[in-house]
Formats: sequence, structure tokens, C-alpha cells
Amino acid sequence: MEVIQVLHMNKGNGDTSYAKNSSVQREIISMGKTIIEEALLQLSVNNDIKSMGIADLGCSSGPNTLSVISEVVDVVRATCGHIGRPVPEFRLYLNDLYSNDFNYLFMSLPAFYKKLKEEKGVESHCFISGVPGSFYARLFPTNTLHFVYSFSSLHWLSQVPVGLESYAVKHLNKGKVYISKSSPQSVLNAYSMQFQADFLAFLKSRSEELLPGGRMVLSFLGRNSIDPAAAEACYQWELLAKALMNLVEEGLIEEEKVDSFNTPYYAPSAEEIKVEIEKEGTFIIDRLEAFDVDWDGGAITDIQTQQGKALIGERVAKTVRAVVESMLESHFQIGRDTMDVLFVKFSEIVGTYLSKTKTKYINFVISLVKKG
Amino acid sequence: MEVIQVLHMNKGNGDTSYAKNSSVQREIISMGKTIIEEALLQLSVNNDIKSMGIADLGCSSGPNTLSVISEVVDVVRATCGHIGRPVPEFRLYLNDLYSNDFNYLFMSLPAFYKKLKEEKGVESHCFISGVPGSFYARLFPTNTLHFVYSFSSLHWLSQVPVGLESYAVKHLNKGKVYISKSSPQSVLNAYSMQFQADFLAFLKSRSEELLPGGRMVLSFLGRNSIDPAAAEACYQWELLAKALMNLVEEGLIEEEKVDSFNTPYYAPSAEEIKVEIEKEGTFIIDRLEAFDVDWDGGAITDIQTQQGKALIGERVAKTVRAVVESMLESHFQIGRDTMDVLFVKFSEIVGTYLSKTKTKYINFVISLVKKG
Repeated sequence: MEVIQVLHMNKGNGDTSYAKNSSVQREIISMGKTIIEEALLQLSVNNDIKSMGIADLGCSSGPNTLSVISEVVDVVRATCGHIGRPVPEFRLYLNDLYSNDFNYLFMSLPAFYKKLKEEKGVESHCFISGVPGSFYARLFPTNTLHFVYSFSSLHWLSQVPVGLESYAVKHLNKGKVYISKSSPQSVLNAYSMQFQADFLAFLKSRSEELLPGGRMVLSFLGRNSIDPAAAEACYQWELLAKALMNLVEEGLIEEEKVDSFNTPYYAPSAEEIKVEIEKEGTFIIDRLEAFDVDWDGGAITDIQTQQGKALIGERVAKTVRAVVESMLESHFQIGRDTMDVLFVKFSEIVGTYLSKTKTKYINFVISLVKKG
Repeated sequence: MEVIQVLHMNKGNGDTSYAKNSSVQREIISMGKTIIEEALLQLSVNNDIKSMGIADLGCSSGPNTLSVISEVVDVVRATCGHIGRPVPEFRLYLNDLYSNDFNYLFMSLPAFYKKLKEEKGVESHCFISGVPGSFYARLFPTNTLHFVYSFSSLHWLSQVPVGLESYAVKHLNKGKVYISKSSPQSVLNAYSMQFQADFLAFLKSRSEELLPGGRMVLSFLGRNSIDPAAAEACYQWELLAKALMNLVEEGLIEEEKVDSFNTPYYAPSAEEIKVEIEKEGTFIIDRLEAFDVDWDGGAITDIQTQQGKALIGERVAKTVRAVVESMLESHFQIGRDTMDVLFVKFSEIVGTYLSKTKTKYINFVISLVKKG
């Protein structure tokens, strides 16, 4: 599987689309808002910027994308107003992988520009463009960005960890799709090393693109525990593997396919993140905070009732499906019907699990400053 | 009809797609190549550019788009090699309207980058981005572009000429979809004035975006004749109107719909173009040349035979359909079946017409320099 070409959130705005099922990500964005505001304030106060380069890395395609842009523009405009500086021209770059639904995103721009003009007048120019490609390599010209943010994206690796894809080792992680309590140490190492290589490559690329004093706010899933097989780090994958193995029992997919599927994902610890930032060397950590996030974004509270259980299961399943369907489709080569069966199973398993335990995602928000 | 939101070349790469039916545009590009090369040579010799901003306005989505980019990068690299200057970093901006098939275009980038790396090594960075929006307004930050080119796009107006859309006048151009020998003077004036306003707005926007000494090569359909109703300027639309009226006779579409449809297109004379360039005042005309272009791109020669007639009709119909289908769909609200019937009719009418006359398109290529 070529992650760079395959991975994308579900397109359009149908029932299983990411646009309609991204409330968890919206929740995560709202947790990062204060930190974004703080970073933009520092940036605007300390620099007299005429043309501000801002990039959203892993922008996806839905209402969240433009709501963050709108927020960013608001904060900079307000700050400039306070300190009596002219509002800069905004260069806004929306990045995601090649197969992201840019068409859907771009079609929402006329309404966005119209609203911007009505609400904020025309005194500042906003130039929005789409930049397709992997953020684990260079995306932008040298020294052109002031602010970079990335939500719910950096837990995706650039590829399935080296070594896990080859035939000889693919049965190492039998019946699992990610790190699990039963995974051998070699699987844990492969994942951890892939994260290290990827995150370092990410930092190096951004360091060349950001101007001195430029800032980044990165928000992605991780873990508080030292153990990469802790529930908070991987239990959603454990349950997805369970649902997949159910389909194996029913003869809908082959067991070998489950054994050979390894998710290109990693939930790092704060320590692992810090090590790479120090290794790269051009960024200062301004903040590094961890937040709990409910699997359903915190919308459903009465999960003890039969109805609540079903509802939360369904909601989590939809959220996960909108994100992972492109990869499952590519690896398992299954059609919509089997995909539906899989996520009904997954929904039941998740509902039952969450009615008994309180596992949550851990989400890091990290604010970085490029050294001057 | 909101041209800015509706107009797009047919998406994807199916039988009726623009990607598969853009040989006329390829022919037009090849006519402009020498002039592009010349402009890039002048640009590279006269300026020491570290990061070159290049925009393709109306890039559409097909093989032509990336082949021109590849050509542009080649020429600059070769020129820099000759004069012993380092090759600049390339910022390549692909612009088209919001509904353009950017997804299809972006999906072809991984292969393009791979080829670029294999053929040309990695010593120069290419950063490709998509910039959705109308080129009749600002698209890029101030003073950031060195070279702008636009092929087969500027004959599209920003809107149906003011005055032709309102109910009171829509029957002025009865049974026609563009300027015709039978059109009253008011229709001619409306079209000409819309072109003037649009082309001036285009030049003003680009003037703010281009650096002093920057260059533009614009290639679009026009006419040699003074008469805007000359066959070279409009006969393809005359024949499309005929095909539409055939469908009216068969009860497949309403006559009122044909009367109220006016194509947002204009084929200007060299004089009309020059007047606007002088009015805007910041560009010098380096070249302005007119070329004949066969309606089918010049592929079919034996148009006297029954088979040749059918073949050329079909080819022209496919080319026209790939370009105008989005507008017809939006205005006439017809499905694929009726659209098929329309273009079979059109194909027959075009075949018969071309077997008797030798009407060709007139295509201008204009090379402009921004004053220093």
C-alpha cells in the first residue's frame, strides 16, 4: 500500500463522508484554539509582517478546514488592530495528500470568500491555494512561511513501518492491525522507528520553509503511558482487528489479509516527540500539553443505557470509517456491502466496550518556535 | 448561470472528458511554444531569479497541463545552464475556476514528480500548487510572479454579457447562442463591452501580481475580421445553435431555453486587445501573432469522403462537448441521453459544413512584458 497515494478521508458530503463525520476532529481543534491564538498573538506582536504565509498541513476536506482558516484570519486581524499595525496580506496554503478531496474543498471557497468579505470588509487580501503532497518532505519554497498548523494528521506515518510489509514478517502481528498487547518487540520497534524517522523528516522540512521566529502548532494523537500497547494508545485498533476477525469467521475476508495489514499510524509519547525536536535542533518548545478526547468527541453521555451504547458505537464507527476506509478498501479490496457489515460489527464491539471502560484518546497540542 | 461556479472542462478521463479530448488545445499550445521559450529566455537572461513564480491561468485538467509545466522548467533550466546561472527554485501555480477537476490533476502529480526527478535530477525544487478562482480578479499576492501563461481560456468571459441575461432582452438573440449574422447591434455591443471590461480587469490584476520585467504569454481565440459575426469568429456556435434548434423541433428541449442561452465567450480582434492593453498601461506588447487552427486540431485531412466527413464531425463534436457540456447541463438541465443526441446532431452538422467550407479558428498568441 502506497500510503501517500491511498490515504484520504472519505470524500464528498454523503453519509459516510469525513465532512459529515469529523466531530471528534472538531473537538480536538477546539482544544487547540487557545494555543493557536497565543502563538498568532506572539507572532504578530514580534514581527511586522506584510504578507503572512500560513499553512494547514493535513487540511482534509470538510467544514473544519475553513473554520480554522477563518479563526486564524480573525485572530491576526484583531491583534493587528490592537497594536495598531496594518493587517497583512494572507497567503493560506491548504495541504493534504494527493488523493484528498480538494474538489469538494475548493467548491466551498466562493461562499467562504463571500462571507469573509461581508463580515470583515475587503481591506485585507486572502489568497487560498491547495498544495498536494506529503508533509514528510518539502512542500513550500524556502523561508516563506510564518505559521504552520496541523490537526489530527501527524499520527499518520508516511508508510507502514519498514520491515512489517515484507512477507517474512507479516505474520508477526497475527490477527492484529496495529501494536497490541500480543505484539512482539520487533513490531513495537518498527513502529517507533518509523515515527522517529517521519517526525524528524517533518521537522527538517518545516525548518527550511519557516522564517526565523516562525511558529508551528501541532495537534495529534499520542499517549501518556510509557507502554505503546496501553489502551489509550491503541485500543480502537484492537477493536477494529476484532471486527475484521469476525468477518474472517464469516468467510467475508481472508485471515491472511488481516495478518498482513498494519496500520500506518503511531501514537507517540511526549518523550518520543521531545527527543526528535531536540535532535532536529531548530525549534524551541513553547508548550506541550496533553488532552483527553472521548472517542465520539464527547457528544453522548448516557452510555450505560442500551440506546446510548448503540448510539455511541455507531458514532465512533462512523468517525473511524470516514478516516480509515480508503486504506481498508485498498488493502482488503472489499466493496461497500462488506464495508457496511464490518462497521456494523465494529459499532457493536465499540458500544459494548465503551459501556464498560472509559478509554479515551490522548491528544497532544505542541507549540513550537523556529529559532531566530 | 454563475459562470465562475459552473464552467469547467469535462472531468476525469472518460470518453467525453477534456483529458481525452483536448487535441485542439494541444495544437494551440504547440503554436505558442516558441513564443513561450523566447519569453522565458529573455526573462532568465535579464533577471537573476532565485525563486521563480510561474502561473498557468485556466490550467484545466489533463495531459496538456503538466506537459507545459515540464516544458517551462526545461527551458529555464537550459537557459540557466547556458549563461552559467544557478537554476532557480520553481513556484508553479495551477489556476482554474472552482469547479475544475483539481483532484484528477493532483492525482497525476506523484508520477510527474517522479519523472522530473529521474530525468532532471533533484538539484532544483518544484513546488506545484492549485489556485482556484477567477483570473478576472486577484489570485496571487502582490509582486510575486515572474511569468504568467494562459492557453485557450481568455476567450471565456467572466459572465454572460450584462444585459443579455435579463428577461426583457433574452429574446433579442432568438434561436442563437452567440453573436450571429442575425444578431442585433445591441447583442454585439453587449459582448464587446463585456470583453473589454473583463480583459482590462485581467490585466490590472496581473499587473499587481507580476514583478517589474515579468512576462505573460496569452493564447486565445479571436478573429482577423472586423466583423464579430464573421464565420471564423462564431460559426461553431452557429452550428451548435442549429443542433439545439433540432432538439427543439423534436420536443427534447424548449425553444425558450435556446433563446435565453448566451455563451459567455468572445472572439476579439487584435485591435480590441491592443486597446485594452494600452488603456491598462503597464504592459508592453512584445509580440501579437495570429494563427489558423483547424476545428479538429488538424488531425483529419480527407474530409471530402463520407467517412472523413463523419470522422471530423465526431472529433470536433467531442472537443466542443468536453468544453461546453458543464454550461449546457446547467442551463438546459438535460441528462446524458439528451446530451448524446445533441452532440450526434452537432457532429453531423459540423461534418457536412466542413466538407464544404474551410472555416478555421483564429488563435492569437500575445507576449507581454511588465514595465520596469
